[in-house]
Amino acid sequence: MATVRLIGDEEAETIPAVKAVFDDIRATRQTDFINNFWRGLANDPVTLARVWDSLKATMTGDTALPPMVQEMIYIAVSTANGCSYCVHSHTAAAKAKGMTPDMHAELLAVIGLAAQTNHLVTAMQLPVDAAFLVGE
Amino acid sequence: MATVRLIGDEEAETIPAVKAVFDDIRATRQTDFINNFWRGLANDPVTLARVWDSLKATMTGDTALPPMVQEMIYIAVSTANGCSYCVHSHTAAAKAKGMTPDMHAELLAVIGLAAQTNHLVTAMQLPVDAAFLVGE
Amino acid sequence: MATVRLIGDEEAETIPAVKAVFDDIRATRQTDFINNFWRGLANDPVTLARVWDSLKATMTGDTALPPMVQEMIYIAVSTANGCSYCVHSHTAAAKAKGMTPDMHAELLAVIGLAAQTNHLVTAMQLPVDAAFLVGE
Amino acid sequence: MATVRLIGDEEAETIPAVKAVFDDIRATRQTDFINNFWRGLANDPVTLARVWDSLKATMTGDTALPPMVQEMIYIAVSTANGCSYCVHSHTAAAKAKGMTPDMHAELLAVIGLAAQTNHLVTAMQLPVDAAFLVGE
Amino acid sequence: MATVRLIGDEEAETIPAVKAVFDDIRATRQTDFINNFWRGLANDPVTLARVWDSLKATMTGDTALPPMVQEMIYIAVSTANGCSYCVHSHTAAAKAKGMTPDMHAELLAVIGLAAQTNHLVTAMQLPVDAAFLVGE
Amino acid sequence: MATVRLIGDEEAETIPAVKAVFDDIRATRQTDFINNFWRGLANDPVTLARVWDSLKATMTGDTALPPMVQEMIYIAVSTANGCSYCVHSHTAAAKAKGMTPDMHAELLAVIGLAAQTNHLVTAMQLPVDAAFLVGE
Repeated sequence: MATVRLIGDEEAETIPAVKAVFDDIRATRQTDFINNFWRGLANDPVTLARVWDSLKATMTGDTALPPMVQEMIYIAVSTANGCSYCVHSHTAAAKAKGMTPDMHAELLAVIGLAAQTNHLVTAMQLPVDAAFLVGE
Repeated sequence: MATVRLIGDEEAETIPAVKAVFDDIRATRQTDFINNFWRGLANDPVTLARVWDSLKATMTGDTALPPMVQEMIYIAVSTANGCSYCVHSHTAAAKAKGMTPDMHAELLAVIGLAAQTNHLVTAMQLPVDAAFLVGE
Repeated sequence: MATVRLIGDEEAETIPAVKAVFDDIRATRQTDFINNFWRGLANDPVTLARVWDSLKATMTGDTALPPMVQEMIYIAVSTANGCSYCVHSHTAAAKAKGMTPDMHAELLAVIGLAAQTNHLVTAMQLPVDAAFLVGE
Repeated sequence: MATVRLIGDEEAETIPAVKAVFDDIRATRQTDFINNFWRGLANDPVTLARVWDSLKATMTGDTALPPMVQEMIYIAVSTANGCSYCVHSHTAAAKAKGMTPDMHAELLAVIGLAAQTNHLVTAMQLPVDAAFLVGE
Repeated sequence: MATVRLIGDEEAETIPAVKAVFDDIRATRQTDFINNFWRGLANDPVTLARVWDSLKATMTGDTALPPMVQEMIYIAVSTANGCSYCVHSHTAAAKAKGMTPDMHAELLAVIGLAAQTNHLVTAMQLPVDAAFLVGE
Repeated sequence: MATVRLIGDEEAETIPAVKAVFDDIRATRQTDFINNFWRGLANDPVTLARVWDSLKATMTGDTALPPMVQEMIYIAVSTANGCSYCVHSHTAAAKAKGMTPDMHAELLAVIGLAAQTNHLVTAMQLPVDAAFLVGE
């Protein structure tokens, strides 16, 4: 059970600022489905609009990285941050955007290896090699 | 300063199990450069060989994801785990494998957004939507 | 299901060191309710007493920050640490101590923004500005 | 050394989208000082503008929580996420907005206790009490 | 519900690379029980074999640390990383390898104290004492 | 540079509550050396005394786990939490309490493997096996 209410469609219809975002999510994603993230966030229409606008600007339209790659990066961060809901939702999204079982398997392998080397490095407290410090 | 010694080339030459890995890293990566991660890990030749074999098997040769994408996933995990050394080394690697400034900028934007929504979701304790629970 | 047993009231009555802490929690909080955190911790009466004494000393009586603010800080840390139980319990506590829906919404927005900028900073590996290094 | 370049004032003057944000930061904060976070982010003017707009909207003007409290929440999240730069910058900001040494000491004490109980709860895998599941 | 399928015994029998690992787990651990970690990982037989080989090499046979201590270290890392499944499985393993209730209680106390001092140190941004920088 | 002042010996002599803790640290540890953690914490004598008393009670005298094992658990948690100072100080302490290079190497290997499996489990969102849910 959540620490906030989930705003259903009926209630959303009565709050113009929420309705506007829900409508735009539906139009952008070409689906009627609004997942719980947006229904929870809808308790605060200002944050709802801000977060949706940020995601829409970064993850739709003309992007530098393929949408499937963006979702895989999202899974990687969500895993390291231990967000169960986010792992579920972005794994579903990555699959919908073309992630094959082989890619999924490799994504998991890379995430696991990264976590292993992250922890080894931190436990060894290694200085950064000069070669990595050349700036942009 | 590290919690372990960094094994230099001279010493590495005297430990066959370390020399073998260092030689393979040089041959695989086509460079003479051995970064501090391997020099720290070389205190334990067994772990050195195991970790190198894992990385070599997953991140070189015939991969399901482009090497540049693997490095970007590595950056994402390393950032969320707060590993400074790893962010430096894998950002250098991703650039070497083709990550353009535009891709780097978008990678950072996606990492930042993921962290934001991860924390919002955790603070709201949202239940996973049934639609995300359809299995593989 | 927990990795430790939850100590019920009947059993607690039979362990003087546990009974003493449970009685003090009830007296201090003016409620008969003892939540699972204390019932799990009661497997180790020494740690139970130590943790309760620490919380009581810091979060009750004459504090520098309003109790509601303390609870919001607790929610922020618990969110970043991914502790589901803690987010639930301290959100309930913050509401009981006066956190309005508007404050809750803003708390979540700040937590989300902080996570975003934390990750952006870590991915960019920025040096601390001299202006922030002026000491206390 | 950072993984991105820090954009200095001279260069910022030549990129209208960056100049606009830097000017607004200076006007909003009533200071000429632009810290490294914005100089790093300026490599990507779109993310720079988006993040600044988000922070400005949430943390300035008419807020539900006092600005000093917002900064303390920021310190709490930054600490749990292990962001050194962020701890430095937001501690400086909290002090500038009225955080006294006593408040700072109590903030640290609460952050420390929260981390302790977060880890105890996770190690015990406690079920959430029904009393905490009453919704908003 | 998982983001991958759990491979049951019947299916495992049909994939030689999976069957080989499952057989070795059963032989090494002297039990017929294969827990869900391996059943999920079995979607990727290469990673399954690699991870099992790593664990077998490090945590069985002739080890520098007693198996029970290894499991307690595993619990400590799993707690800090917020992995519920891992806390459950390694707490069961530690108990099976001799962890008494007193040791479990002390393990939890140490984990909690470490988390508290970790966060206090990070919030204070303390410089490492020269005395700790003497190398190996 | 820290976000708090480090309290030197001269100043500590003038604050009875700080002097009492510093004296007890010196007597308990049989050394004149007071590391920066306590010098930072000394800005808040109440927290200084509380944290020292907790550590002294848990990590000295009659313990269920050998002091060296306690320090290794401390290193594990500090690594996962990304606390550089703590990794340094507790690695020094573990060595002083008998951790050999072989044990240190194995500790690092276990920490790395735990991190890897933690992340794999979280990315797969595995259900806990019934066998692990048998309670204490």
